[in-house]
Amino acid sequence: MSDRIDSMLDFLVLADRFKTVERRAYIEDGSRRENSAEHSWHMALCAILLETEIGFPVDLGRTLSMVLVHDLVEIYAGDAFAYDAAAREAAVAKEEAAARKLFGSLPADLGAKLEALWREFEAHETPEARLAYACDRLQGFLQVYISDGKSWAEARVTREMTRKRTAPAREADPAIERLVERIYERIERRGFWNADGVAVGGGKGVVP
Amino acid sequence: MSDRIDSMLDFLVLADRFKTVERRAYIEDGSRRENSAEHSWHMALCAILLETEIGFPVDLGRTLSMVLVHDLVEIYAGDAFAYDAAAREAAVAKEEAAARKLFGSLPADLGAKLEALWREFEAHETPEARLAYACDRLQGFLQVYISDGKSWAEARVTREMTRKRTAPAREADPAIERLVERIYERIERRGFWNADGVAVGGGKGVVP
Repeated sequence: MSDRIDSMLDFLVLADRFKTVERRAYIEDGSRRENSAEHSWHMALCAILLETEIGFPVDLGRTLSMVLVHDLVEIYAGDAFAYDAAAREAAVAKEEAAARKLFGSLPADLGAKLEALWREFEAHETPEARLAYACDRLQGFLQVYISDGKSWAEARVTREMTRKRTAPAREADPAIERLVERIYERIERRGFWNADGVAVGGGKGVVP
Repeated sequence: MSDRIDSMLDFLVLADRFKTVERRAYIEDGSRRENSAEHSWHMALCAILLETEIGFPVDLGRTLSMVLVHDLVEIYAGDAFAYDAAAREAAVAKEEAAARKLFGSLPADLGAKLEALWREFEAHETPEARLAYACDRLQGFLQVYISDGKSWAEARVTREMTRKRTAPAREADPAIERLVERIYERIERRGFWNADGVAVGGGKGVVP
């Protein structure tokens, strides 16, 4: 009992470090980049809104659980930038090692539960995981729109690169597709891309 | 349809501001205070671990939804410090006004859904809301432990004040009580309080 409580407590203490895992996109005022805890929370809010918009039923508890733990391995493995193919390839082995260390620190039953959620998300085959995965791509895209394209302009991300990246969100469900396409419409109006389709940023804030 | 998508999108853009609502407790290295998005994510992680530890069944989807939206009104109302009674009293009216503005900006059905979750959390009577509410108190307490009591030392918070604040977590379920009391044991060993029971901070990091 004592070991179980201490393991859970140590895990919850360690989880604080998730708040210092820096992602690429900025928050709205451009003052700093978003962190993985904030990203996960924002993704979860997307899932709560979308649950009743999409055309297939999901167990919301499992979807939200996946959303909330899907990036936890970054505590040890760090975040790999969406448009850095080499970093993303290297991340696979790093994240497997991180998962062993991270989930292995919990009591076996709880570790297995969290690991199963992480693997279900990564496979994104079940309805719950498809929604969670779509929310990951949606939120990542949304955050760049919110911060007026600053991180895309820095990395010279092209329109085509973003279309590939948002495909799993657009293809998951028509309701999610409409939301993503509406963001594209707004982005195009703001002139995020130059004539060659390379990101140059929108130039001012977008918060209504 | 167009209005519905735009309302949802504007709400998700506005939600970014939740990441700049500053709470009182610090993150582990003491470099900055935690924000409300991070707090909500960390609370949700507590709920995921505790779901199978507690002695009563809950609908995890509703618990997590409550956790994730329970503080959203702070986007307009700000965070009221747990140990500032006047601020907390003033917060009630401010949060009601904030809820009207915030949830009223969504399509009616979605706004009603989020408002109902917020009110269920505030009443903390259903099993789902009791777990969510307990996780709020648990995470608030945990975060001060993680940051070695810095925010308590600043505000001269007493042991007795914290016992009142953690009561809803301790009383919600024996499993949560054990977790909270284990934190107290660790805190006492670190000497968070002076001989008068006033917080002085622990003096170094606690991450395992």
